[in-house]
Amino acid sequence: MSQAEDGIEPGRRFATEIREQPAALRRLLEHDGEIARVAATVRERDARLVRIVGHGSSDNAASFGVYAFGLLPRWTAMRDTITLTVHYGTPLDMSGSTVIGLSQSGRTPDVVEYLRGARSTGAFTIAVTNDPSSELALAADATIPLSAEPELAVAATKTYTNTLATLALLAAHVAGRGREVADGIREVADLAEAGLPELERATASLAVPFAYTGRMFVIGRGVEFSTAREIALKLLETCRVAAEPLTATDLAHGPVAALDPLFPVWAIASDDGTLAPVQEAAARIREMGATLVASGTAARMIEEAAYRVPVPTPRVALLSPLLSVMPGQLFAAALARSRGLDADAPHGLAKVTLAR
Amino acid sequence: MSQAEDGIEPGRRFATEIREQPAALRRLLEHDGEIARVAATVRERDARLVRIVGHGSSDNAASFGVYAFGLLPRWTAMRDTITLTVHYGTPLDMSGSTVIGLSQSGRTPDVVEYLRGARSTGAFTIAVTNDPSSELALAADATIPLSAEPELAVAATKTYTNTLATLALLAAHVAGRGREVADGIREVADLAEAGLPELERATASLAVPFAYTGRMFVIGRGVEFSTAREIALKLLETCRVAAEPLTATDLAHGPVAALDPLFPVWAIASDDGTLAPVQEAAARIREMGATLVASGTAARMIEEAAYRVPVPTPRVALLSPLLSVMPGQLFAAALARSRGLDADAPHGLAKVTLAR
Repeated sequence: MSQAEDGIEPGRRFATEIREQPAALRRLLEHDGEIARVAATVRERDARLVRIVGHGSSDNAASFGVYAFGLLPRWTAMRDTITLTVHYGTPLDMSGSTVIGLSQSGRTPDVVEYLRGARSTGAFTIAVTNDPSSELALAADATIPLSAEPELAVAATKTYTNTLATLALLAAHVAGRGREVADGIREVADLAEAGLPELERATASLAVPFAYTGRMFVIGRGVEFSTAREIALKLLETCRVAAEPLTATDLAHGPVAALDPLFPVWAIASDDGTLAPVQEAAARIREMGATLVASGTAARMIEEAAYRVPVPTPRVALLSPLLSVMPGQLFAAALARSRGLDADAPHGLAKVTLAR
Repeated sequence: MSQAEDGIEPGRRFATEIREQPAALRRLLEHDGEIARVAATVRERDARLVRIVGHGSSDNAASFGVYAFGLLPRWTAMRDTITLTVHYGTPLDMSGSTVIGLSQSGRTPDVVEYLRGARSTGAFTIAVTNDPSSELALAADATIPLSAEPELAVAATKTYTNTLATLALLAAHVAGRGREVADGIREVADLAEAGLPELERATASLAVPFAYTGRMFVIGRGVEFSTAREIALKLLETCRVAAEPLTATDLAHGPVAALDPLFPVWAIASDDGTLAPVQEAAARIREMGATLVASGTAARMIEEAAYRVPVPTPRVALLSPLLSVMPGQLFAAALARSRGLDADAPHGLAKVTLAR
């Protein structure tokens, strides 16, 4: 709905929900006991191959889940193909697998169907959804409520960060490190709350030079690849920028050739083993004459950046994507506003996507 | 090198190597016995979790590998994270895993390093490379030579289709269906050879209305997602189009909102369980006013398409991506030519990418 229809200023819900993220994270922590119980069942069943499925922001969160399970219990996790079982009808033996279905609404048809099939072929299935009475929740062995309260803007924000936090907590409890990660999420909520007002000012200024940008790359690697994907999706859906997410390394394997001064790049940098590839990519981006925005916990270590929007480093490094997505969300909100677009209700989208 | 440097017309190598694909496929079939032997070892070791790694076109081929192993032996295959083990140094237990490292040059540093680590933690490792004396080949338990002969254009073509064929043959031999798939590849080589001249004419005309296109989506699902990714990459690297690959369903989860009459979409349609989602996406694309190009074996079943570039349906349906990538390669060649860009040597790229 636009302003004319509901009397709410365009983009207001999106901006409000970005600001609600610290509160939503704290609300999720109230369900830490439930998450620990689900993790206990996963351990009991020793279902060590983790298959995560979702679309859009949920799929972006799945990219984070791969690292949460890889770094904490050191289990192999993957964004599984939905098409193979659902659309091609291929029966796979899923005993020994934990399946995590991600859907804010709990109504994404092929995610529900995938999860049902997985359960019938031996997987332990978990629904992560903002609607614990949804079809997805009913289909699963266990449900973790996202506890983000209603999300009204079409573009996901607080359900995305709460999905990241849920995956981190679940992986942490499987690894016997639940307390440490729960404390880490509490710290992230505090850091976000303290930092959001300043980030909002910084991204409002940052949006000005990008008013007419039609194309962007968003690069990140490792845990921050999920952030790159999610920021690109916010820019696509709320600002109509053709924003493509890439790992820093994949940028070098071809796409870098498309860059020019009218094709800027947003890079998410972390002070870990992925910093060198991101710095290398930054140098190549500047060689192509493209403008570079650096964000993330190591934004200050990207010398070639024309603009920097750093976020603080949380004690639990795995949780940095919960913070580093926020500058991108706020940038998208500011850019949509400056373009006269309603970030709450982009043309052509509905909140619940029932596409197959 | 440009024309001035080597006397070769810009884009000539790229076009020549596209046309060499049928011959390259036949050359690969001469190595069918070696592939069968590697598959026998995989079966003997019962290493049923297949981890595929690569960058750029190799990573696009890995998307196909997920379906080749899923549909033929019904094993779980994944595009594995390189960052987790290489950049974060996380030790994973890889006993029970088959690892396939894809690299045309065999020199991609983090693919080599990933494969070494995987081998040391129990995986059976296979190098698929156009250089059987490369570092990747030396690091692996077994090597399958791509047999594409030297590829000189920076943008991969015949090494991409030969990688698809290698993955299909390997999965087929694991499933005891090697003969059927080898025959299927022979048929695909014949179909390609017969069809390429007409496709070349059709895509040359098709490139004309897209002369000034700055952004595109390329959509496909299931086995054709690899094709969507590979066509988008060709457009990025040879034509400087901001082309993003998406599954038909992910398009609906946000990106569709960015479409307008200046933002066309290329859709790959197959006459299988994925046709309905692609048709649904086509309807939404037209609602947004975007121009639609349909290719693939079921291009004629996309009513909303303004242009259609169909390819024939091979007897082994899994092999359709070997054919359906060709209209995209030829379209990129024609579009680059019309823009005065040298598809053989895009600015900012080298043939061997040593980026970390």
